[in-house]
Amino acid sequence: MYDMYELLLQLPLFQGINRARLGELIEKTKFHFLKYPSGSQLVKKGDHCTHLKFLISGKIRTELSNMNGKIHISEEFDAPNVIAPNFLFGAVTSYPYDVFAVEETGIMQIDKPTFINLMQSEEIFLLNMLNITSNKSQKSLESFSFFTSGDMKEKLACWILNFTNRKANNIKIVCKQKELYTFFGVQRSVFLYALNELKDMKIIDYDMRQISVLDRYALQQVSVS
Amino acid sequence: MYDMYELLLQLPLFQGINRARLGELIEKTKFHFLKYPSGSQLVKKGDHCTHLKFLISGKIRTELSNMNGKIHISEEFDAPNVIAPNFLFGAVTSYPYDVFAVEETGIMQIDKPTFINLMQSEEIFLLNMLNITSNKSQKSLESFSFFTSGDMKEKLACWILNFTNRKANNIKIVCKQKELYTFFGVQRSVFLYALNELKDMKIIDYDMRQISVLDRYALQQVSVS
Repeated sequence: MYDMYELLLQLPLFQGINRARLGELIEKTKFHFLKYPSGSQLVKKGDHCTHLKFLISGKIRTELSNMNGKIHISEEFDAPNVIAPNFLFGAVTSYPYDVFAVEETGIMQIDKPTFINLMQSEEIFLLNMLNITSNKSQKSLESFSFFTSGDMKEKLACWILNFTNRKANNIKIVCKQKELYTFFGVQRSVFLYALNELKDMKIIDYDMRQISVLDRYALQQVSVS
Repeated sequence: MYDMYELLLQLPLFQGINRARLGELIEKTKFHFLKYPSGSQLVKKGDHCTHLKFLISGKIRTELSNMNGKIHISEEFDAPNVIAPNFLFGAVTSYPYDVFAVEETGIMQIDKPTFINLMQSEEIFLLNMLNITSNKSQKSLESFSFFTSGDMKEKLACWILNFTNRKANNIKIVCKQKELYTFFGVQRSVFLYALNELKDMKIIDYDMRQISVLDRYALQQVSVS
């Protein structure tokens, strides 16, 4: 149990809570604990978001697809993490992606009404939750400010950063290369040249059907260079 | 005063509050009222967000620029509205754009600590604020789902929708055409063809230095067609 407290205290939502208070809260709050075997599905895209789900052990993979189903972004997250906290409220309260357990995974969840009570009784949860949702909302204007007529490498970097998460590992963009170079409006050779440059910099790797992000932080440097 | 209540009740933040309760709250809460003459600047990009600012009369224009200063998006908002509610919390708590009074404009503002108290005492403000910030945060994944390798018209529609607001009027994208067609990686003729199609549909108008959005709703239809 104590290990779990340490873990939860690493999450942005629990930032600023002291350990003793967290213990009290977890005892008196209706948290549910679930286990998922490796490979099983935790969440289906479109499922209604009725709970806030904390990843407390193991590893998950999210899979996001565009509307025509031709481009997929997959990302992995280690414990501790929260699944789609910005889809518990707002116009869309269903999950935007599928979520799978990459290994045996533990989830702690709290239902929406209980979480609302928690935010009302503990200011710190309220502030943390507003910081989380506001943070995510600032991303689209941020991506505008990085908008550039620069080279293909920069454009690709901006595009990947816009749709992926800072804390994600093993980020993969799965699609035919043609989908991407058609979107970016460049010739295949120009697109491949940019991919090769990024590969030489050890920032990405790629093959015919996917791009793997090896170093998302370095990608940020490319996008603002 | 009563007219102002009616006005505020139209805002998403006040949704679900009844009029009598709103009257009580406004009397006991420290709201400040400010007037700005036509043409004056209310907010400078980079100003620290210390208050939640409600537009209660008149009209404002926001001006957003990308990092190299070559592309500008300007949008107008009528009262009632809230200015940048998703920059009061989060990693960035400074205004992302300049804000000007288009005509004589009235602002009602509340400081951050007082607003936090309000959310703690009135669940409905808390829920409305979480809905607002979550809504805005859902935009970047939404734009991914609309991501398409489709024609120039669709791409331009997606791009404009991503960086502008549903309730905005008189949306203008001010930049050299070259900046945009270089970004989209198309020839000038292909870009002009798309602009002309959208113009013929009465969705936009354009000249050498700007694109004006005449019908943002119709643009949404183009982006998903």
